[in-house]
Amino acid sequence: GAPMVGRLAIIGIGLIGSSIARAARQHGLASSIAIADASPAAMAEASRLGLGDSCGTDAAEAAADADLVILCVPVGAMGQVGAAIAGALKPGAIVSDVGSVKGSVVAQLGPHLPEGVHLVPAHPVAGTENSGPGAGFASLFHNRWCIITPPEGADPQAVETLRAFWAGMGANVETMSPERHDLVLAVTSHLPHLIAYNIVGTAADLEQVTRSEVIKFSAGGFRDFTRIAASDPTMWRDIFLNNKDAVLEMIGRFNEDLAALARAIRWGDGDALFELFTRTRAIRRGIIDSGQETAEADFGRRHDDDATA
Amino acid sequence: GAPMVGRLAIIGIGLIGSSIARAARQHGLASSIAIADASPAAMAEASRLGLGDSCGTDAAEAAADADLVILCVPVGAMGQVGAAIAGALKPGAIVSDVGSVKGSVVAQLGPHLPEGVHLVPAHPVAGTENSGPGAGFASLFHNRWCIITPPEGADPQAVETLRAFWAGMGANVETMSPERHDLVLAVTSHLPHLIAYNIVGTAADLEQVTRSEVIKFSAGGFRDFTRIAASDPTMWRDIFLNNKDAVLEMIGRFNEDLAALARAIRWGDGDALFELFTRTRAIRRGIIDSGQETAEADFGRRHDDDATA
Ligand SMILES: NC(=O)c1ccc[n+]([C@@H]2O[C@H](COP(=O)([O-])OP(=O)(O)OC[C@H]3O[C@@H](n4cnc5c(N)ncnc54)[C@H](OP(=O)(O)O)[C@@H]3O)[C@@H](O)[C@H]2O)c1
Ligand SMILES: NC(=O)c1ccc[n+]([C@@H]2O[C@H](COP(=O)([O-])OP(=O)(O)OC[C@H]3O[C@@H](n4cnc5c(N)ncnc54)[C@H](OP(=O)(O)O)[C@@H]3O)[C@@H](O)[C@H]2O)c1
Repeated sequence: GAPMVGRLAIIGIGLIGSSIARAARQHGLASSIAIADASPAAMAEASRLGLGDSCGTDAAEAAADADLVILCVPVGAMGQVGAAIAGALKPGAIVSDVGSVKGSVVAQLGPHLPEGVHLVPAHPVAGTENSGPGAGFASLFHNRWCIITPPEGADPQAVETLRAFWAGMGANVETMSPERHDLVLAVTSHLPHLIAYNIVGTAADLEQVTRSEVIKFSAGGFRDFTRIAASDPTMWRDIFLNNKDAVLEMIGRFNEDLAALARAIRWGDGDALFELFTRTRAIRRGIIDSGQETAEADFGRRHDDDATA
Repeated sequence: GAPMVGRLAIIGIGLIGSSIARAARQHGLASSIAIADASPAAMAEASRLGLGDSCGTDAAEAAADADLVILCVPVGAMGQVGAAIAGALKPGAIVSDVGSVKGSVVAQLGPHLPEGVHLVPAHPVAGTENSGPGAGFASLFHNRWCIITPPEGADPQAVETLRAFWAGMGANVETMSPERHDLVLAVTSHLPHLIAYNIVGTAADLEQVTRSEVIKFSAGGFRDFTRIAASDPTMWRDIFLNNKDAVLEMIGRFNEDLAALARAIRWGDGDALFELFTRTRAIRRGIIDSGQETAEADFGRRHDDDATA
């Protein structure tokens, strides 16, 4: 049959944008794909990889005449891109994004969009620690969740089109409010990243233990944190600045719990430690049972057959 | 040639003990292997798997006449096992262990061992989140570090035998004092585990976000912490109770840094966030360059050709 959408515009052709381009092409979801990215280097790589039918640095040009425009830029750049494309959007166009924070994106984009254009934000909960057009691959969203956060009063047909588009790329689609999204992701993504960045920073700054000792003996657990803490600095700066309240609330909870844990260690309360360490296993089992992870042990040297474009 | 050691006794046949049994057998490092474990279930599984020449629940019986005895029990059980085997040890025997804390193990074992028996503690910095005789495999120590922590005045020949034994299983051997070991591992292993247990506990206890939401959207980073927080509760309770001072010191550092990070988020100091998030990448690169990890992206669904016994 005919593709689900006509002209698809992707603004920002990094890990997520290029994965959408590949998946949309592979599954025949759009009749044409226009790409724009502010970075000439990214643009050149996207051209070389043949990710779209047209490639340029002008977002408005890519968005002109598009049926679906997906903003795949850092959360802090959404408002700027919204302002740049607003005048070029055709009536009935759907504007979406993939930002990791949703309340702020709605607030940034909403004021720019003309009457008759449908804003339907989304967030695919899938990614790797790598960036750029070369890092993407078509199966990134397979069996992963994509959360759609339609603002109040959103057009049901536009929401359905976006849902079908993400389902077409293999994602499981869930709908929730932007506020709920930001609270849930503060726990499942933003706090873990902050903690990982923090512990790697702490280790790097110690004067009693050298950096080469930290590197050498990292296999004891630290190594896994460094992978998360190697994620893109711009992306994560923007996430924390744009989900401040929920993140600070989660830091508060984390701190209370850590204080209790430190007290248990100080006073030799082995039962309290054992109880917590047993309870945390149930969550792991839930994640494995839900198919979001395998139970296989991790030895720090991986092979992955998903890693194909 | 003749095996490196004659009779090898392994007390505690869990993940680490059974990996040593398999590796020693595969590389012909001992002329015979005697196994003891307090758990009849573990003992039965070890027998069924054919991990040793003899299997029983009596540690003294396994240690009798042994040239090298390796204690592979939780850190909190070392003193008790030392007391149990002391009377059975022959003169010139080497007593070692694999405990994740070293100062406490030296303190627990030292007083029990008779004159003429050599205490040479060690810690292989390798493992998985799984436990028990079935979880071990012969290549677990391949290209991993094993830290030997000889007490002051240790017999050089005994130290050399233990070094050669670990090198024979494919490990890279490093020597340091028990105190330094406990400080370095507090950063590279103990603090990361504590933080992982803590964040998973925090997430499990939230009243605003349900446990099923946490599980469902765990792919955003949280998932990786749950793997670490699924490690054995007894083992980790014992580690924290026996490396209290270094762990509490590291928690203090971590807290100071997290407070600064929270302040940067609260006041919108994007430059401070960006600076930290950039700095942490250097450590990651160091780990990859050192061969302790691959640069491949992690998609949460792994395959590993190391996972063979
Ligand atoms: N990575 C993940 O794991 C993940 C997962 C889910 C959602 N997300 C979200 O997806 C979005 C993109 O992330 P990503 O990982 O794909 O990032 P990325 O690989 O760094 O790609 C972002 C691209 O957007 C370009 N860009 C930045 N500002 C722009 C602007 N004003 N106009 C046009 N292009 C601009 C960047 O160019 P420069 O390099 O010149 O800045 C870069 O090429 C972010 O909002 C992020 O929160 C990421
Ligand atoms: N797992 C890792 O990643 C790792 C890495 C490096 C070092 N280590 C260290 O290695 C040691 C063993 O860890 P593991 O992961 O191999 O543990 P494990 O799989 O749980 O095995 C420990 C075994 O020792 C037995 N045991 C407990 N107390 C005993 C006693 N008093 N006498 C005889 N046997 C006893 C246990 O029986 P029960 O089940 O009945 O208690 C269990 O079968 C610990 O000191 C740990 O700190 C572990």
